[in-house]
Amino acid sequence: MTISGGDTSRLRRINLVTTLRALRGQGPLSLTEVTRRTGLSRPTVESLTEELLGSGWLKELPPQPGHMGRPARLFSFHATGDYVLGIDIGSYSIRAAVADLDGTVVASRTERVGADAGRSVRLTAVRATAVKALASAEVGSAQLATVCVGTTGVVSHDGRVKRCVGLPEWDGLDLAGELGADFDCPVLVENDCNLAALTEGWIGEAQGVDDVAFVLSGVRTGAGLLIGGRVHRGRGGAAGEIGALPLLGWHRATSHLTGYPKMPADILPQEAAEYVFAQARTGEPAARWAVEQYAHDLAEGIAALVLALDPELVVIGGGVSRSGDVLLEPLRRHLDPLCLEPPALAVSTLSDQAVVLGAVRLALDHVDARLYDVDTMLPEPSS
Amino acid sequence: MTISGGDTSRLRRINLVTTLRALRGQGPLSLTEVTRRTGLSRPTVESLTEELLGSGWLKELPPQPGHMGRPARLFSFHATGDYVLGIDIGSYSIRAAVADLDGTVVASRTERVGADAGRSVRLTAVRATAVKALASAEVGSAQLATVCVGTTGVVSHDGRVKRCVGLPEWDGLDLAGELGADFDCPVLVENDCNLAALTEGWIGEAQGVDDVAFVLSGVRTGAGLLIGGRVHRGRGGAAGEIGALPLLGWHRATSHLTGYPKMPADILPQEAAEYVFAQARTGEPAARWAVEQYAHDLAEGIAALVLALDPELVVIGGGVSRSGDVLLEPLRRHLDPLCLEPPALAVSTLSDQAVVLGAVRLALDHVDARLYDVDTMLPEPSS
Repeated sequence: MTISGGDTSRLRRINLVTTLRALRGQGPLSLTEVTRRTGLSRPTVESLTEELLGSGWLKELPPQPGHMGRPARLFSFHATGDYVLGIDIGSYSIRAAVADLDGTVVASRTERVGADAGRSVRLTAVRATAVKALASAEVGSAQLATVCVGTTGVVSHDGRVKRCVGLPEWDGLDLAGELGADFDCPVLVENDCNLAALTEGWIGEAQGVDDVAFVLSGVRTGAGLLIGGRVHRGRGGAAGEIGALPLLGWHRATSHLTGYPKMPADILPQEAAEYVFAQARTGEPAARWAVEQYAHDLAEGIAALVLALDPELVVIGGGVSRSGDVLLEPLRRHLDPLCLEPPALAVSTLSDQAVVLGAVRLALDHVDARLYDVDTMLPEPSS
Repeated sequence: MTISGGDTSRLRRINLVTTLRALRGQGPLSLTEVTRRTGLSRPTVESLTEELLGSGWLKELPPQPGHMGRPARLFSFHATGDYVLGIDIGSYSIRAAVADLDGTVVASRTERVGADAGRSVRLTAVRATAVKALASAEVGSAQLATVCVGTTGVVSHDGRVKRCVGLPEWDGLDLAGELGADFDCPVLVENDCNLAALTEGWIGEAQGVDDVAFVLSGVRTGAGLLIGGRVHRGRGGAAGEIGALPLLGWHRATSHLTGYPKMPADILPQEAAEYVFAQARTGEPAARWAVEQYAHDLAEGIAALVLALDPELVVIGGGVSRSGDVLLEPLRRHLDPLCLEPPALAVSTLSDQAVVLGAVRLALDHVDARLYDVDTMLPEPSS
């Protein structure tokens, strides 16, 4: 409750960030202009500017000619990379997207991969997809500020896949280490549901919503959480793993769809859910029953998330979200009686782009954090 | 990603707070000293100081005599109240504690109340306990900065008890409205488990831990969450209400203890759990079985919280925490197989003080937030 002596250096950091913010996203500014915009004294701004020049966050431009008297020194913000790369490692496909620092995707690629592909085959596909996306964007690896990779499984803080049942030979993989060697910039790894949740908050159904439970319903059933608008990873990256509790129905949910008794032999596994929903849409009784059972089991895990967290919104995403018109009614019917109050429920419209766009967003957030966080930025930007 | 026009007023707010912080916890300071400590320009500090004087956050002191030249104007921080009052409304007792703004409890009172006491009897007991605690502390009502009240039940953001099965005639009570009329300062109302969680983070088992699931195991079973070190209330104040999911065992957990077949007739209901644990400690088989069943059911709800949130720590509090030596082994045995990794588990040592101290802490946080939050403070302190 009192001001400690350590606040002097903290105050200087705050002033450094204030100065950086005044310069970021602007054309070159003079010291006088920086002083005006920050409200700081001129000696303070001079000292801060020197420090920021020394640490590489600012660059000094040649003084503008044609002015009377001594020309004013001009400074501008110095970015350390102009693009980010997001990657989504799925069971049946790899997606990569290159975006600029404003978040505009300038190129993206999707490559197929076999669901039974092992570790080395899948990693090769990941690298090939990244190379193609970068080539398509005409962006060199040296122009990347951050890479972010999404994967199913529990991901540790240092980017290892600690636990994964969805992909062959993926359990225990040091994914950040494997891909980190391919890039000169930081490589982040994050759980795919967490990334999809982030995308919903960025450009999807959860814009402006602080606390969100995102439920990925597709080949697998999983969840990612936003709390205070940020991904909540938990102690070991395992937040949202409510599906691991056998008392609740997520472990068996998709089996109701894949086990649909009238499934034609030529329907691929990744198309099974959508086929059952299409049949249910026509009123076919066995398909309607399969959807009913699926909704019942999905509701149990969602109810546990709702009762634990009381989120402002639940977003249903993943492949099943394309069939929201069929799913929502039975889901509401099973879910609402399990909750104290009916939760707000939305169906994602981002479909299979949510994870790769979330990887882009997390990479951008990482760039921003390096710029803005008064506790972790400085003394110098990473090369 | 760009600096918007609205940042000018935000920058002024930041500078206002910087100025307030420089003055808070200090003796009177001159403008020159404030300028030096903040790094702001003198015209900026003069303008900010006038605004803070006008809004009541600062007071101006008489200039010190005996100096050469024009005496310097002196300013100091102006607190709006010197104490907070915390109240815990329980089934069997009402607790009240008066603390100063450093969080030191200067007086506290506990008064008994019947578990079957209705709304008006219980409210009368609350008021009487508060009056006695204030008298004991020799603190007048006008000296209170904030009052905070803890109650069982789901509490809305405006301090209504939206849902409560634990106390008679308590469901739907506008508790903030009822008690707000008794005090001139803000009256906050919060769920008791949330407050106990806050206390664990403040002075208990969860100090320095960001993400905590606190489980109240006593007359009732409930939970409160800390995320990022702050109480996570959720959309409607219902976070932690995992006990409402009948698939999990919390709704029946305490019945294993209260239904102990060898319970003597003279054991009061509020003493039942402790009696069974004491018997289990001696090895009495029926008591051991009751504890085993209790641990089994408690573990299911805890596992759901752990899998949903992946907290850094689970703290077991409430009356049962006094029997942690008997409970922990069976609880771990039932809990660990339900979780992906065994969660860190601690038993509270705060016993029945956790809720009232949490009320004190939340009141202090409210005082701090009014002082420090750049988004909500200003233009003026509440009277």
